[in-house]
Amino acid sequence: MVKVFSPGSIGNVGPGFDVLGLAVAELGDTVSMEWGENETRVNITGRDADLIPTDPSENTVTLAAQAYLAREGFRRALDVHIERALPSSGGLGASAASSVAGAMAAAALLGKEDDHQGVVEAALTAETHVAGRHLDNIAPSVYGGLTLVQSVDPIRIHQVAVGCQPTLLLVTPNIKIKTKDSRSVLPEKLIQSDWVRQMANTCTLVNGFSRGDFDMIKHGLEDGYGERYRSPLIPGFDEAKDVCMELGALGFSISGAGPTCFAFFERRDDAEKAKEPLHHVFGDCTVFIGSIAAEGAKVL
Amino acid sequence: MVKVFSPGSIGNVGPGFDVLGLAVAELGDTVSMEWGENETRVNITGRDADLIPTDPSENTVTLAAQAYLAREGFRRALDVHIERALPSSGGLGASAASSVAGAMAAAALLGKEDDHQGVVEAALTAETHVAGRHLDNIAPSVYGGLTLVQSVDPIRIHQVAVGCQPTLLLVTPNIKIKTKDSRSVLPEKLIQSDWVRQMANTCTLVNGFSRGDFDMIKHGLEDGYGERYRSPLIPGFDEAKDVCMELGALGFSISGAGPTCFAFFERRDDAEKAKEPLHHVFGDCTVFIGSIAAEGAKVL
Repeated sequence: MVKVFSPGSIGNVGPGFDVLGLAVAELGDTVSMEWGENETRVNITGRDADLIPTDPSENTVTLAAQAYLAREGFRRALDVHIERALPSSGGLGASAASSVAGAMAAAALLGKEDDHQGVVEAALTAETHVAGRHLDNIAPSVYGGLTLVQSVDPIRIHQVAVGCQPTLLLVTPNIKIKTKDSRSVLPEKLIQSDWVRQMANTCTLVNGFSRGDFDMIKHGLEDGYGERYRSPLIPGFDEAKDVCMELGALGFSISGAGPTCFAFFERRDDAEKAKEPLHHVFGDCTVFIGSIAAEGAKVL
Repeated sequence: MVKVFSPGSIGNVGPGFDVLGLAVAELGDTVSMEWGENETRVNITGRDADLIPTDPSENTVTLAAQAYLAREGFRRALDVHIERALPSSGGLGASAASSVAGAMAAAALLGKEDDHQGVVEAALTAETHVAGRHLDNIAPSVYGGLTLVQSVDPIRIHQVAVGCQPTLLLVTPNIKIKTKDSRSVLPEKLIQSDWVRQMANTCTLVNGFSRGDFDMIKHGLEDGYGERYRSPLIPGFDEAKDVCMELGALGFSISGAGPTCFAFFERRDDAEKAKEPLHHVFGDCTVFIGSIAAEGAKVL
């Protein structure tokens, strides 16, 4: 039997729509896997376990695992246990983390857990089935840290050096945003000044992390696209942002398509102070305080 | 008397439209300046000297110098000599280099040549007069290396670490491109997939330079905007690009609004080999082989 931990992630980090992803330390899926007898069986515990299909043809862990095995010429039944920590449809890359864990567990069963490229490709197959053909959550789950997805076809992923360790705050309000809505509010086209500014901000964010410069990260987190158009879908967003910024956050924005929001703080103490007022703003919500994951998915 | 050298620059480096600028070593304007008697006098020698106005109210060196002096509460006549090496309207930031040299020379006359912020602001005043309110050439001329202009209002410039030293080839065909044409060919709006790709490429370029990774720089140089729409204005562009890429260039693209084109090579020998075929492609042209300037404008 093998056991794999795969971290959740912030997709669309700030202005980096479809491009930047960031792995979250100590918050993710843990998948145990062994060869099965006749048919593949899936057992799920943990957060939102009841929302996840156990049918192997619908479950991202087994879809990714079977995709990996197929690449290697195998077709075998699997016994799978999934222990979840990420909210379903929360914007923290839960399906990507599951896909990566499944693919890496299958790779590990074959003694190939270091085949990162193969894991990315198999996870993408599963992710495409449930959430669309994107890598901005898969990449950080596999590689850890801050990742830059240059393109999906062909797959080009680059790691950005992370030269500082801000504290990460995640708050997940207990609401659901329909994927259809989160896509439909985004304008189809942008005028030059808008996309140039978005590009400049994303480069500033990459450069800021790379140089370990908190001030540059702060300026780079300005997002005139995802946050601008999606924040109205999250009641309380503006107020929550004000709370965090007044406590010294470098920025506050939406993770993926939401509703999870994230903030970076230079000092952990300041992040802790935001907990209570955020509960006040959002009512029913989960607040997690952690850090950027230095490494990606791994065999435990 | 003070003497200042200010390097020319590549604006819009690859996909980094209006955002990335790169200083060119050993190719720029040299300005000598001293306090004058009754009225400001300008003398110009060097490349395209006859195309540059000597009227102090039209000359970027004196415009920038007077703007700097005015900031400091001075209004004095100047005697100025300009020795030019950059082509006028060539796409190598000649007017920005002149503006920067003028502003820094004026600063030096007041013993304030280290006031980079003031030099940038005064140079921007002059540049706005002749070429528009942009910083992507001014920033590298002042700071050297690779610069990221996050915004003009407010002025936010970040330096990108340059972790490798590619050889730089510049080729300036002897044609003029009207500013009106170079702007009008660019589409007003981009669809999401296009600007996201442009953003991903620019981030890859920043990350590639930062990490000193030639392969990443190569992938990051893909430009689906400036090059795509402006290259038809440069007869021979595609053929010249083929020549350089076959000789191992990391990329070949347009500097600023052109007609100068630039290429990066890992090996200087390969760049040298491109000289003769480029002359064959463009006919009347100038080829310069050099490197990225480690530092910006300076008092000699």
